[in-house]
Amino acid sequence: MKFFNDLADFSDEQLHALLQLAGRLDTHPEPEALRGKVLSLLFLSPSLRTLASFQAAMIRLGGGSFVISPTMSIHGIETRPGIVMDGAAAEHIREAVPVIASYGDAIGIRAFAQRKDLEQDLADTEFKALIDLIDTPYINMESAIGHPCQNLADWMTLDDFSIPANGGKFVLSWAYHPKALPLAVPASTLYTAARRGMDVTVLRPEGFALPDTVMERARRAADAAGGSVQETDQRTAAMEGAHVIYVKSWSSTTSYGDTIADQKLRNELISWCVDESWFDNAQDDCRFMHCLPVRRGVVVSEPVLDGPRSIVIHEARNRMLAQMAVLHQMLGNSA
Amino acid sequence: MKFFNDLADFSDEQLHALLQLAGRLDTHPEPEALRGKVLSLLFLSPSLRTLASFQAAMIRLGGGSFVISPTMSIHGIETRPGIVMDGAAAEHIREAVPVIASYGDAIGIRAFAQRKDLEQDLADTEFKALIDLIDTPYINMESAIGHPCQNLADWMTLDDFSIPANGGKFVLSWAYHPKALPLAVPASTLYTAARRGMDVTVLRPEGFALPDTVMERARRAADAAGGSVQETDQRTAAMEGAHVIYVKSWSSTTSYGDTIADQKLRNELISWCVDESWFDNAQDDCRFMHCLPVRRGVVVSEPVLDGPRSIVIHEARNRMLAQMAVLHQMLGNSA
Amino acid sequence: MKFFNDLADFSDEQLHALLQLAGRLDTHPEPEALRGKVLSLLFLSPSLRTLASFQAAMIRLGGGSFVISPTMSIHGIETRPGIVMDGAAAEHIREAVPVIASYGDAIGIRAFAQRKDLEQDLADTEFKALIDLIDTPYINMESAIGHPCQNLADWMTLDDFSIPANGGKFVLSWAYHPKALPLAVPASTLYTAARRGMDVTVLRPEGFALPDTVMERARRAADAAGGSVQETDQRTAAMEGAHVIYVKSWSSTTSYGDTIADQKLRNELISWCVDESWFDNAQDDCRFMHCLPVRRGVVVSEPVLDGPRSIVIHEARNRMLAQMAVLHQMLGNSA
Repeated sequence: MKFFNDLADFSDEQLHALLQLAGRLDTHPEPEALRGKVLSLLFLSPSLRTLASFQAAMIRLGGGSFVISPTMSIHGIETRPGIVMDGAAAEHIREAVPVIASYGDAIGIRAFAQRKDLEQDLADTEFKALIDLIDTPYINMESAIGHPCQNLADWMTLDDFSIPANGGKFVLSWAYHPKALPLAVPASTLYTAARRGMDVTVLRPEGFALPDTVMERARRAADAAGGSVQETDQRTAAMEGAHVIYVKSWSSTTSYGDTIADQKLRNELISWCVDESWFDNAQDDCRFMHCLPVRRGVVVSEPVLDGPRSIVIHEARNRMLAQMAVLHQMLGNSA
Repeated sequence: MKFFNDLADFSDEQLHALLQLAGRLDTHPEPEALRGKVLSLLFLSPSLRTLASFQAAMIRLGGGSFVISPTMSIHGIETRPGIVMDGAAAEHIREAVPVIASYGDAIGIRAFAQRKDLEQDLADTEFKALIDLIDTPYINMESAIGHPCQNLADWMTLDDFSIPANGGKFVLSWAYHPKALPLAVPASTLYTAARRGMDVTVLRPEGFALPDTVMERARRAADAAGGSVQETDQRTAAMEGAHVIYVKSWSSTTSYGDTIADQKLRNELISWCVDESWFDNAQDDCRFMHCLPVRRGVVVSEPVLDGPRSIVIHEARNRMLAQMAVLHQMLGNSA
Repeated sequence: MKFFNDLADFSDEQLHALLQLAGRLDTHPEPEALRGKVLSLLFLSPSLRTLASFQAAMIRLGGGSFVISPTMSIHGIETRPGIVMDGAAAEHIREAVPVIASYGDAIGIRAFAQRKDLEQDLADTEFKALIDLIDTPYINMESAIGHPCQNLADWMTLDDFSIPANGGKFVLSWAYHPKALPLAVPASTLYTAARRGMDVTVLRPEGFALPDTVMERARRAADAAGGSVQETDQRTAAMEGAHVIYVKSWSSTTSYGDTIADQKLRNELISWCVDESWFDNAQDDCRFMHCLPVRRGVVVSEPVLDGPRSIVIHEARNRMLAQMAVLHQMLGNSA
């Protein structure tokens, strides 16, 4: 494996092998698998789970990692192309990325969406420009439009809780959040649930429909896997018989990049906070998933988050296991 | 060992085994003991020795660790219970702690006292609330009222310098410091010296007596171990025949949580800076201990700190060895 | 090897052994060489390459490292000697350095020049004061006047690109930069190229001549190695037949420590930006080297930096390999 950027780059067999390996590494540790191997970790955006779980994953496999982020005591990183660097930043990303990559056997890069231009973010322009600078194996640790480590962990979580693939009903719901957030998690989660063959409903208010290209990609994946993709702004219909609700806030797509218009839209939507009443017509044991961090009392009520439906901690731990599988295939001696 | 929170949780035999193991690991390294094992380190309060020594300890035993602190480029951590999270912080400690713990075989947590309510701090309410969120093995890396890693390192240091247990005279002295500091080190150090069977004198000015419960716990430990506990504000009497003076500043307990009243009290006490004159009637080779960091010329004079009495660097290094012993017992294959 | 501070401390045989080892460790990894060994890393100045490459180096050799820098959540480090510490900083460098060193088998320290007093910086007064506090093996990770890890990596890079030693023409050129930068890299690079036996020309404008002691040390090294050292402000003459140009900005030496006078001098020198026209009379395949970080469009034009002359990424990667060789000799079982 030379890169891990999008579940769509892998066949069903490859994904199942990764999921199986993730589970095996949990019960059968391999502390020698990556001895002396180095993972470079470049965080251009904040992180907690990704930061912690990748470090832990490398240690468990006998290797190690180092972290670079612009908030550290480094010289400041310029990202704009073609600029005369007479300002504060002393280093350009065009050197920083290949240098950091050169110290590792692979590099993980996190760079959130700019959220200025929807087409650019959907095309993952910024992340691709970074990847073009290197020829090392790389891992997408969340880009403008992708979060494959989260996706693999989520798939594993659905399996762990025996949530049906074909016939399983997956609701991807928008929720209120005071800030406009990236599309990476909702877009790639939608694809993942569809790819798993589930019946997926995107529940979102007016102005927050996912982009057509995102919906279409998911529909094609669902068609191939025996699932389906729908969208609605009707909560009751969406939740009917749901096995799992995956909650995440995201930016308005009709006002993408327009902070004021987005804020105006979302200010009316403060009632989109998932509470127990949402589950009235869902499956009795309908699960609550969220990639975290999650705002208590804003995105989800405390009783739901702290109650038996919530599998968010299990889901977060699976990040480490999924990444161990990826790293094992990417850097292992059999790789 | 499932937790390391308080020396009082361990029998004399267990403590001696830990001390013996700490010494053995210094001379007989075991770089395979914890291979592939991960220690999660959560620092809610600043640190240098703890931060460095735990990382070094895990490497020496063949494992590794990762560090999370709110000053990193993470999303901000909310600690208040029951709050509607519509402010700056995007993640609640109720998710952060179990998630971070889930990536490790054990977790170390540091969370200083709030210093608002003495009863709450004495009961270690905040630390216990964090620990209640997890079922992973954990290590107290300094809480409101405990600092067991420091205590074990100090016990080891007393042994290393052949300072007598029964019959040894240990002075725990308050010193001037411009800020009100926590009670964790003085309270747990007092217990430790008493538990070791020493004759302990707490030397402190009016308004800085340690809380009754702290004194009583130490007296009970001294009774059981053949030592004694006294307190005084008379320096000359306290230092008479002392084998070691352990210096630390702490908050006023009569004005606990009242910054202005505390400041007013301590402003009169600037002369409580340990200099060579303090040792006039002590043992000739009376040692100077301090957990560090220490303010030169404020808490202690430079000649004492840089002179032959001072064993603070040895004491700081023992932090690593003591923690290696704890980690070995907690995470080792024989554990 | 007990310290790595200056290439001048090593014989030609020792340097060649280090270079050979660096190359061998690249092709023949030794992930068990330093198992359980710890490198303490103290960064009193910003860093990216040094920060990343030392961590990677230790992992590749089976050990590990930890990083301390004053920008972390520690208590603040006071560096002034003899001060009464009643201000913000709670810890003095006189404790911090020996404590940090005590957790490692070796310590790496980075402390840039104060750039106030030229004699003090040339004498490396500050770095020597830090080293005097410890007896652990240590590595200079860039001091006021030395950067031996960069020097060893640069030597390796010259070898890798088959740039001739005797008979090879090495131009060390000043370039424009908006800030006054330290002398460590130019001074130690000049020595290194001279020591390698090359014909070295220092190309710099009026006011930026390297100090006499620096020039003389290089001349002595060149004499012993069969090379030569010249200096000029004439670009065309300097670049005639050059095999490599090593570019770096540095402070004015005639106005050392006088920020305003330095700024006035450099403001006239904005044309000292290396572009393709500089190479008109150089060797056809004349290489461009720079220790990074480098300001695009300021120090060097984008076409040169992104073009085939530039070997800066290879040079940066050699930092890791060179340091692995040093660490292997310093901490390896055969050490």
